[in-house]
Amino acid sequence: MPEAKLWIWGGTALVPGAPNGRLEDAAIGIADGKIVSIGKRSEVTPAPGARKIDTTGCLVTPGFVNGHTHTGMSLLRGLADDLPLDTWLREVIFPTEQKWGSPDFVYWGTLLACAEMIRGGITTFNDMYYFEERAAQAANEAGMRMVAGQSLTEESDIDGTGKDLTGSFDRFRESVGDFPLVTASVAPHAIYSVSRENWKALIEYSAKTQTRIHFHLCETRWEVQDCQKKYGKTPVAFFEELGLWEQPVTAAHAVCLTPEDIQILGKHRVGISHNPESNFKLATEIAPVVELRRAGARVALGTDSTASNNNLDLFGEADVAAKMQAFKYGAGALKAQDVFSMLTREGALALGLEETGVLEVGKQADIIAIDVTAPHAVPIYNPYSHIVYGAGARDVKHSVVNGQVLMENRTLLTLDEQEIVREAAHWARRISP
Amino acid sequence: MPEAKLWIWGGTALVPGAPNGRLEDAAIGIADGKIVSIGKRSEVTPAPGARKIDTTGCLVTPGFVNGHTHTGMSLLRGLADDLPLDTWLREVIFPTEQKWGSPDFVYWGTLLACAEMIRGGITTFNDMYYFEERAAQAANEAGMRMVAGQSLTEESDIDGTGKDLTGSFDRFRESVGDFPLVTASVAPHAIYSVSRENWKALIEYSAKTQTRIHFHLCETRWEVQDCQKKYGKTPVAFFEELGLWEQPVTAAHAVCLTPEDIQILGKHRVGISHNPESNFKLATEIAPVVELRRAGARVALGTDSTASNNNLDLFGEADVAAKMQAFKYGAGALKAQDVFSMLTREGALALGLEETGVLEVGKQADIIAIDVTAPHAVPIYNPYSHIVYGAGARDVKHSVVNGQVLMENRTLLTLDEQEIVREAAHWARRISP
Repeated sequence: MPEAKLWIWGGTALVPGAPNGRLEDAAIGIADGKIVSIGKRSEVTPAPGARKIDTTGCLVTPGFVNGHTHTGMSLLRGLADDLPLDTWLREVIFPTEQKWGSPDFVYWGTLLACAEMIRGGITTFNDMYYFEERAAQAANEAGMRMVAGQSLTEESDIDGTGKDLTGSFDRFRESVGDFPLVTASVAPHAIYSVSRENWKALIEYSAKTQTRIHFHLCETRWEVQDCQKKYGKTPVAFFEELGLWEQPVTAAHAVCLTPEDIQILGKHRVGISHNPESNFKLATEIAPVVELRRAGARVALGTDSTASNNNLDLFGEADVAAKMQAFKYGAGALKAQDVFSMLTREGALALGLEETGVLEVGKQADIIAIDVTAPHAVPIYNPYSHIVYGAGARDVKHSVVNGQVLMENRTLLTLDEQEIVREAAHWARRISP
Repeated sequence: MPEAKLWIWGGTALVPGAPNGRLEDAAIGIADGKIVSIGKRSEVTPAPGARKIDTTGCLVTPGFVNGHTHTGMSLLRGLADDLPLDTWLREVIFPTEQKWGSPDFVYWGTLLACAEMIRGGITTFNDMYYFEERAAQAANEAGMRMVAGQSLTEESDIDGTGKDLTGSFDRFRESVGDFPLVTASVAPHAIYSVSRENWKALIEYSAKTQTRIHFHLCETRWEVQDCQKKYGKTPVAFFEELGLWEQPVTAAHAVCLTPEDIQILGKHRVGISHNPESNFKLATEIAPVVELRRAGARVALGTDSTASNNNLDLFGEADVAAKMQAFKYGAGALKAQDVFSMLTREGALALGLEETGVLEVGKQADIIAIDVTAPHAVPIYNPYSHIVYGAGARDVKHSVVNGQVLMENRTLLTLDEQEIVREAAHWARRISP
C-alpha cells in the first residue's frame, strides 16, 4: 500500500466489521484516490507533510449516492409546485425547457446542483438530462463522481439526440471520456416517451457497448395502464421481452409494480432508485422497497430534480423513505441501518459502481464527515438512527471524493460558489414567469 | 406607537397585504416586545442607538409555532427506533421514564430542546410532560414563548399529579405564573390513560379556570376501537358528551377520525396539532388535515418528541405535511402557502395565542430570518414553496421572541449551549442501555 498523503483524522467512523459497526477515534489514510488504511488515531503516525482533515466531533461515513436526478434542471427549482405530474410536466416543465434549455443552462444548473450536493454529503450522482456532456463537464470541475445519462424524450427532443440515436450516444460517450470520475449511460426517458423501435435500438446499443441504461420505470398508475393498453402487459414484462433486464440498468421510481414485476426485477438484481419525496409530492404511490430488496434488487435513494422536489437533500429522502415503508408495511419494516446502506454501499451497487460506498481499504476514498456537536445531534444512542431520522444536509462538514477534498469546514474548495449563485440568480430573473 | 429600539433590517418580509405577500428591503421596528412599524428600509431612519439585526439575504417571517411536543424527553432522543407505538411506549419509554424521569431530567431536556428549537426557527411551543414547571423554567431562561402542559398519565404518574388532581394543577399554574411568556395548560395524556372521572374533573377545572387542555386524540386505530368498546362511541363523540369541546382545547394528532368527528372538531374551531413525521414513523394513518381545516378546525404543525421523531425540525414537518396530504387527497391539496400559515398564524391560533404568528403592527415581535443565499435556496420563484419544500432548520440565521434577540448569526444569546450539550451527553452516558 502506498503511504497516505491525506488523513481523515478523528471522530467515529462507520466501518463494517467494527464492534457495533463503529470505530471511535478513527484515522483513515488516503493515497492515489483510495483508502489505504483504517485504524485508530492513537495507533498511526502520519508521514511528515501529510494533510489532515480534522473530523473530531463527527460521524465519518462513505459519501452518499444520489440514485436519480436531473441536475440540469436546477435553475427551475420550485418553478411550479403543488400540481399533478402530468400538468406539471406538460404545462410547465416541457415548455420552459423548450424555451430555455441549452448547453449553458445545463452547465450552470449542474454546477449549482454540485455545490448543493457536496454541501449535503453527496459524493456520487446518477444523472439524466439533455446536453449531458455539459453536465458531465460541471461534475468534472466539481470533482464529483457521476454516472451521466444522455437523455432521449421523443416529444421533447431538445438536443436532437433522437435524430441520430447511436451516433449521438457514440459522440456523447466520447465527449465525457476524458473525465476520470464520469461514467456514461444512455437515458431513454420512459416507456411512454420513447418508441418500441428506439427502445430496441437502445437495448442493442447497451448490449454492444456495455453501457448502463437509466430510465423512469412505473412512476405512475397511468404509465402502467397506458402500457397495458398499448402492449398488453406491464412495463416490466414488456421490457423483459425486449431483453432490457439482461443489460446493466438503473430504473428510477419503480412505484407501481405487480408481484410478478418485483420478482423479475429481483431476479436480475436490477438497480432501482427510490425517490420517495418526489413520489410523495406528485401523489403517486408508495414503492414496494421492502419487497424489492427482499427479491434481490439493489435500491438506491434519489432526490429527483429540484423542479419536482425543490432540494437535493438525501437526508430528507432517507427520513421519508424509512417512514414511508413503515407506513406501508408496519413500523420498522425498513430500519435505519438498511436506509444507511441504501444511501451508501447499496446505492453505489445500484449504479454499477463496485469500488465505492464503503469505508474499506482498497475502495475509492469517497468520504464525508457529519458534525454531531449541535443540540439536535445530542444524545446519539445510535448513529444510523441519527443520520436517517435526525441529521440534516447542513450538518455535513467535510467531503472527500476520490481522495480530493471538495469541502473543508463547510467551504467548497473546487467550485466558485458565489459565482455559481450569482449566475443562477441571473438565469432565474430571465426565466421567471 | 413607541419608538423602535430594535430593527429587523433588510431582506424580504412575508407580510399579509403586501403585493404577492412580499415586502422587499424590509424594515421592521420593535419596541416593548411588539412590532411597532413595518415598512421599507429606504423609508425609515432608526433612532440613534437603536439596535439593528442585519437580515439582508434572508426571508423574514413570523417565528414558527411547534404545536405539540414533550421537550422533557429530549434526553431520550432516538433511544429506540423502528418499533410500533405500543411496544415503543410500554417496553422502552415508560420504563426509562420511571427510572430516569426527575425534575432535573426535565429541566436539562427542555434546555436542550430550546437550543435546538431556536436554531430551527421555532419561537413558540406547546409542551406536555411531567415536572412541567421545570420545563417552563427552562423556556423562561431561553426566552421562548410556551404553552406549558402539566401531564397526567395514570399508569405512569411519575410526579404524582394524579394523587391530588386540582391541587396539583393549582400549584403548577402558580409556579409558572412569574414566567411572562409561559401560559399554563392541563395535559391529560389520552382517553385510554386517564379515567372518565378524571376527565370530567379536568374539564370542570378547565371551565372554572379557563385553562387550556392539551392531550393526544385519536392517534391510532387501536385507541378508537378501545374507546368504542369501553364507551360505545368514538373518542370525539365521547368528549362531546363530557363538554370538552366547549373548553379551550389543543388536540394532538387527530389522525383516525370519522366524518362526524371532523364536523364536531370543525364546529367548535378546535385547535389541532398535526404531527406528520411522528404519525408516519409510528405507522399510524394520514390525518385528514384538508377536511379538518375545511370544517373550521385550526391546525398547527408539531414535531412530537425527539424520542419518537428524533429532531424538533418544523421544516421537515412542513415538507412531509404537504406531501402527505397530496398523497391522501391529490397533488396540491394542501398548498405551500397553507402550510406556511399552519407554521405561523394558524398554528398560534390553534394554541389560543391571538397576539403572535403574523408580521403585523401591534402583534408580538416573534420573528425569524431564514438565510436564502446558499446554493439550495437558489433560485426562489416562490418563497412559501422554498420554506416548505426547500429550506432546512439550519438555514435560520436570526431569531427574536417578544422583542428579545435569542439568536444572532447562528449564535444563541440566551443559553449556554456548550454547557447544555455537555450536560445532555452526561445524562446520555448514564441512560444508555
